[in-house]
Amino acid sequence: MSTEPESPPAGAEIVTAGIVIIGDEILSGRTKDKNIGYIAEYLTAMGIDTREVRVVPDVPEMIAEAVNTLRARYTYVFTCGGIGPTHDDITADSIAAAFGVGIDHDPRAVAILRERYTEADLNEARLRMARIPFGAELIENKVSKAPGFRLENVHVMAGVPSIMQAMLDAVAPTLKGGRKLDSVTIDAVIGEGLIATPLGEIAKAHPGTIIGSYPYFDGAKRYGTNIVVRARDPELLAPAAAAIEAMLTRIKAETA
Amino acid sequence: MSTEPESPPAGAEIVTAGIVIIGDEILSGRTKDKNIGYIAEYLTAMGIDTREVRVVPDVPEMIAEAVNTLRARYTYVFTCGGIGPTHDDITADSIAAAFGVGIDHDPRAVAILRERYTEADLNEARLRMARIPFGAELIENKVSKAPGFRLENVHVMAGVPSIMQAMLDAVAPTLKGGRKLDSVTIDAVIGEGLIATPLGEIAKAHPGTIIGSYPYFDGAKRYGTNIVVRARDPELLAPAAAAIEAMLTRIKAETA
Repeated sequence: MSTEPESPPAGAEIVTAGIVIIGDEILSGRTKDKNIGYIAEYLTAMGIDTREVRVVPDVPEMIAEAVNTLRARYTYVFTCGGIGPTHDDITADSIAAAFGVGIDHDPRAVAILRERYTEADLNEARLRMARIPFGAELIENKVSKAPGFRLENVHVMAGVPSIMQAMLDAVAPTLKGGRKLDSVTIDAVIGEGLIATPLGEIAKAHPGTIIGSYPYFDGAKRYGTNIVVRARDPELLAPAAAAIEAMLTRIKAETA
Repeated sequence: MSTEPESPPAGAEIVTAGIVIIGDEILSGRTKDKNIGYIAEYLTAMGIDTREVRVVPDVPEMIAEAVNTLRARYTYVFTCGGIGPTHDDITADSIAAAFGVGIDHDPRAVAILRERYTEADLNEARLRMARIPFGAELIENKVSKAPGFRLENVHVMAGVPSIMQAMLDAVAPTLKGGRKLDSVTIDAVIGEGLIATPLGEIAKAHPGTIIGSYPYFDGAKRYGTNIVVRARDPELLAPAAAAIEAMLTRIKAETA
């Protein structure tokens, strides 16, 4: 668990994001989500703070509730899933309903599909993938062509990880990143319980840093704790890291 | 892990669940969530439908919003994360606030921690793990002792997957599900790291079973792994258990 981020230095804009994962297959456990961690790490590297994630079923009202709540709260929203050709791919229609705009086959999207499929192959199901809410911009899909789309601050992407990742690459240049967090990681081969109290004191003593404590349990070997110090001002990292190293040295000596 | 969801038997009560994952480290991408898919698949195997998941930061108001919304919507809520000893483990206090009840060191939880830690080791930080909201029942933790708790229909569990999984096993018998799982437990006095790969192969080779691996480390510094095989069809248990016993015998011979 990491500490609550401190308010940023003056001048550093905080850019935030919410993620909505759409699909019954994730909620049943049949498909294991690989997108939350990827997007979160990607955005963190850009200096964008992911603040909330929701996983919802293929139910229009649930999709609308999640998207409308998060798009009002955060700078950006990213959705994954439900834009394929099958009957249960209802994300585009649900997003249109959430925004209260119309939706139809988009000539730009149809043209992209025509590049990929022959007239014979471009059946009604595949044409569903060209249904785009009015007013949306397309998001390029270099993997399988069928595009995602952006409506205001909501980016609607595929659920298949390789396709989602290609879409995120296409979207990234259009996003405003806040200042990237620099970080230092210290692997303490020592139980979290032994360092929790002094670590809390160090966190208090170093405002402007975010000190996270991530216990791990290597089933075959040991308990340990990865300590990560993050700061938007890199000059704040070294003093906090030094205080942690000194604390670890002291505790290891005491418990040796 | 390979149980396929099935539609509940006719006339069976629909039992639903919501999951709340708590922790900045998930939202930063620093830690990749392994609990959503595990819990969802586990509940599906029990005939419990997971309807919604939320990932929230270490912010009391966000935790309360998610828990209060989901506990009103679904039969059960399961939370993961934020019940460790560090300054940023605020889940127990946030849950108490969400329910509007008090919280203090729980004599039952303190007694459990005293079994594990000497007086000298049971410092203030570790005692934080005994803070339990008034009126809650404890959830046993066979891996590292510090308990989770249940308040009404909300089950508060650890974020470390091996500990969460042990807590879910402790909770399962108390849940009403469309189906119950039969299980067989095998105590392997061998590190999880040595058996993880072959265990995964055995899981793949035995569809219809869910094979869990729960490392333990006792006071005598002896480590081992409890392997639990679960299945709705009890006839699937014996073949999987036999394959595991054979694998353990082989590995012990190789490492002797």
